[in-house]
Amino acid sequence: MDNKDFRTHAHELVDWMADYLEHVDSYPVKPDTKPKDILRQLPGHPPTHGEPFEAIFEDFRRIIVPGMTHWQSPSFFAYFPANTSAPSILAEMLTATLGAQCMSWATSPAATELEERMMGWLREMIGLPGEFTGVIQDTASTATLCSLLTAREAKSDYAINSRGFDTGRRFTVYCSTEAHSSVEKAVKVAGLGKEQLRKIPVDDAYAMRPAALETAVREDIAAGFTPLCVIAAIGTTGSTAIDPLAAIGEICRRNNIWLHVDAALAGTALVLPEFRWMVEGIEAVDTFVFNPHKWMFTNFDCSAYFVRDPGALVRTFEILPEYLKTAEAERVNNYRDWGLQLGRRFRALKLWFVIRTFGVAGIQEKVRLHLKLARELAGNIRSANDFELLAPVPLNTVCFRYKPRHVSDEVALNTLNAGLMERLNATGKIYLTHTKLNGRFALRIVVGQTNVEERHVREAWEMIQRMARG
Amino acid sequence: MDNKDFRTHAHELVDWMADYLEHVDSYPVKPDTKPKDILRQLPGHPPTHGEPFEAIFEDFRRIIVPGMTHWQSPSFFAYFPANTSAPSILAEMLTATLGAQCMSWATSPAATELEERMMGWLREMIGLPGEFTGVIQDTASTATLCSLLTAREAKSDYAINSRGFDTGRRFTVYCSTEAHSSVEKAVKVAGLGKEQLRKIPVDDAYAMRPAALETAVREDIAAGFTPLCVIAAIGTTGSTAIDPLAAIGEICRRNNIWLHVDAALAGTALVLPEFRWMVEGIEAVDTFVFNPHKWMFTNFDCSAYFVRDPGALVRTFEILPEYLKTAEAERVNNYRDWGLQLGRRFRALKLWFVIRTFGVAGIQEKVRLHLKLARELAGNIRSANDFELLAPVPLNTVCFRYKPRHVSDEVALNTLNAGLMERLNATGKIYLTHTKLNGRFALRIVVGQTNVEERHVREAWEMIQRMARG
Repeated sequence: MDNKDFRTHAHELVDWMADYLEHVDSYPVKPDTKPKDILRQLPGHPPTHGEPFEAIFEDFRRIIVPGMTHWQSPSFFAYFPANTSAPSILAEMLTATLGAQCMSWATSPAATELEERMMGWLREMIGLPGEFTGVIQDTASTATLCSLLTAREAKSDYAINSRGFDTGRRFTVYCSTEAHSSVEKAVKVAGLGKEQLRKIPVDDAYAMRPAALETAVREDIAAGFTPLCVIAAIGTTGSTAIDPLAAIGEICRRNNIWLHVDAALAGTALVLPEFRWMVEGIEAVDTFVFNPHKWMFTNFDCSAYFVRDPGALVRTFEILPEYLKTAEAERVNNYRDWGLQLGRRFRALKLWFVIRTFGVAGIQEKVRLHLKLARELAGNIRSANDFELLAPVPLNTVCFRYKPRHVSDEVALNTLNAGLMERLNATGKIYLTHTKLNGRFALRIVVGQTNVEERHVREAWEMIQRMARG
Repeated sequence: MDNKDFRTHAHELVDWMADYLEHVDSYPVKPDTKPKDILRQLPGHPPTHGEPFEAIFEDFRRIIVPGMTHWQSPSFFAYFPANTSAPSILAEMLTATLGAQCMSWATSPAATELEERMMGWLREMIGLPGEFTGVIQDTASTATLCSLLTAREAKSDYAINSRGFDTGRRFTVYCSTEAHSSVEKAVKVAGLGKEQLRKIPVDDAYAMRPAALETAVREDIAAGFTPLCVIAAIGTTGSTAIDPLAAIGEICRRNNIWLHVDAALAGTALVLPEFRWMVEGIEAVDTFVFNPHKWMFTNFDCSAYFVRDPGALVRTFEILPEYLKTAEAERVNNYRDWGLQLGRRFRALKLWFVIRTFGVAGIQEKVRLHLKLARELAGNIRSANDFELLAPVPLNTVCFRYKPRHVSDEVALNTLNAGLMERLNATGKIYLTHTKLNGRFALRIVVGQTNVEERHVREAWEMIQRMARG
C-alpha cells in the first residue's frame, strides 16, 4: 500500500469511524456470538500474496464488528467503563503514525517531557499533594505490581532484587475482601505467596474495617511476620466502596507499612472538590494509581501511577546496559526505569488532547452528570418495592437486585437475578454485569461511558423493571 | 468536540499523517533538543476551559513534532526498529475508535478469536511446530517475565505462588553475557535474585558457549542450587548473535531446565526458510517470544509469545473473581489469564491488516531486502582499510568502528568512535546508536525501517566515512 492509497483509505476509515461513533447506540451492545463463530470465518492460513484493502476492510465490517462488544455504546453499563472521546482517538491516530518508542528521553524527548507535564497536570487535577511524581503505566494491575515490588525492595534494603528471598523474613500484605484481583496476582508474581495475603473483612458498606486490619497486623507481628504493604481501594471493583484512608494510613504509619492506593476507576471523581474527602489521609500514602482510561475519556491504555519516592521506584527497576546509555541520563526522566517494560508507547499525547479539549471544567461537568445519573437510578431502585439496593452508591456504580415479595430464599434470588441479567444482555439493548456481595448475586450498572445521557439510564431502568416483572 | 467536528478534524489529521509519512525523511531523525526545552513550552497548569482543536493541533506541530525522534524515518538506524506500516496505522485508527477491552472472550469475542487465529498464522509463518500456542503480550520484557514466572511455578509445583519462597530450594537462571537487560529485570521481579543469574561467556561471534553453560549448571547443582531456566537469545540486542539452540536445548533436556527463547527482533527473519536453522533444536524450547512491533511492520505494542503448555501459563496467572465469571469460560480463551495485565487492547487487528496487506511473500521480500542491505554495508566496511567490523552480521545489524591506521590504543578508539557517533547524530541526517563488544565501542547500524532503501544505507555509509576521515 503506497502513500497515496494510505491517504485514500485513511479518509474512508475516518468516515466509517465518525459514522460508527454517531450510531454506536444502534449496535447490539453485547453481540449474539457463540464460541468459534468468528474463528470459523477466518482462514486457517495466512495469505501468500497481498490483498486489496477493500477486501480487508469489508471483512472487518462483516466479520469483526458484529462480533465485538461495543464498549463505547452509551448503553454499556458493564464491568467498568473504558471510555474514549474524540480528542483521544485523534491523538491515537497521531501516536500510531509517529510510531515512536518512548522508553527514554533520548528516544523521544518531546514524549518524555509531555508525559512529565501531563502527570503534573493530572496530579493537580485530582488534588494529590505536590510531593507525588507520576508516570504512565499500562494498567492498574501493573502499577500495583510496581508498588508491591518497590515496597519489597525498600523494606529489604534492595536485598531481594540482588540476593532473592533468603533474608529469613516473611512479609505479609493486606487488602480488603473486596479488593481487585490484581492484588493477589501481584503478591504471587512478587514471590510473596498468596498465603501471606490477608483479606481484611469489610463493613456494611463493603469498605475495609481498620480495626480488623490492626488486629491482623498485630497478630502477624506476634507470629513473626513482617507486615509489608497495605493496598487500600478507593472504589472497589464490586461496588466502589471506599476504604477509610486516614484510619488505614494511621495503622501503616505506626507499623512502618507501605501504603498503596488503588483508585483505578474512582480516581477520576477526585477532579471534583466535593470528592476530595476520599483521599483524606493521603499523607501516609506511598503510591497511588488511577486510570484515565477508565472514566476520563482517554483511550486504553493510560494508567496514572503516582509515587512519593521516584528514587525507590527507579532503584527497584533500573538496569543500564551499554546500548541504553545516553549523555543526558542525569538530567532527564528515562521512564523505562519506572516500571516493568522497556518499550513504551507515546501515551501522554492523548491525555494532552483530552484535557485541553474538555478543560478541567468540561471533565468535571461530565463526571458530575454520571454521578447524578447513578444517584437518580439508585433513588428509583430504592423506591421500587420489588427491587433492592445491595450496596451504598458513593460514586457511579449501582449494585441491586430484583426481589419480588414472593421470593425470599437467597439461592432462588440469585438464580432469578442471574437469569434476569442473561435475558437483559441477550436483547443487545444494554449490557450489564454482576458481582457477589455477601453471597448475593448483584446486578451492576456503572454509569461512565463518555456519551451516556439521562435517557440511556432511564431506558435501561425501564427495561430492567419490565423484564423482571414480565 | 461533537461528532461533526471529530469528522472534520480526523480528515485534517489524515492529510497531516499522509504528508508526514511522505516527508518523514526530511525531518531531523534525532531532534536538536536539550533537556527541558519542551517542558518549558508546556503550561504548568491544566486549562480550566476547553480549547479549540485548531490550537491543540497547532501546538502539536509546533512543540511536539520538532522534539520527537523520528522512528519511522528510513534513516533511523538506531536501537532496534519499531517499524510501522500503512495497514497497521489504519488498524490502530479502528482499534482506538472501537475502544474495546479484550481481557476475556465475553468482553470482545471477535477480538479474542482474531487473536487466536493471528497467533496461529504467525506460528506458521515463522515455522514453529504446531504444539505451540500463542498470545499477544505488550513487550518481550513482559513475555520473558511471564516465562520465568511460569518456570518458577511449574518447577515448584505452583508452591511459590501460594506459599512464597519457603521451599528451601535456590533456583539459578542462565543467559549469555550479551542477553537483553529484561532478563535481569525479570529475575529480580520474580524474586529469584540477581546473584542467581549466571551470565554465560560468549564465543567470538558473541553467542553463548554451550560448554560454559554446561559447566555452570554442573557447578550450581554441586553447590546445591536448582537450575531453573535458560534464556537463549536468537539475535542478541548488541550484535544479533544467535545462541546455538540445539546444544543449549540438549543441556536443558538432560538437566530438566526450562528453556525460553528471546527472538525479539530476529523472530521476523524466520519468515524466510533460509533462516529456519536458527531454531533448530526448538523441540526443547518451552516458550518463545518475538516482536512483530520491531521488524514486522506492526505498530508497537505487539509481542508474540508462544508457549508449549498454555495450561502452565494460565495456572500461573489465573485469578477468577466473581465479576469476571462468564458462562463460556470452559470453551474459549480468556487472555487476561495468559499474562500480567487484566486490561488488554485489541492488538490482533493490526496483525490481520498487516499480514493480509503485505501477504507472506510481501513480508519476505521486505525482510530479504533489509538483510541484503545490511550484508552489503558489512561488505563495504570490510573493504575499507580504516573501518573494522566488530561482529559477524548474521542478520540486519552491523557493528563496526572507525579505526584509522594511526590510532591503535583501545581507549582512544572508543573516544574517537563515541565522538564520531555524536557528530553523525547531530547532523539530523541519520541516527545510529552504539553497543560495547569486548570492551570496544561499536557503532551499530540496524536496517529494519519499513521504507528503508538502498540509497538510505548508501548515504549513511558515505556520511560516516566522510565525517570519520574529515
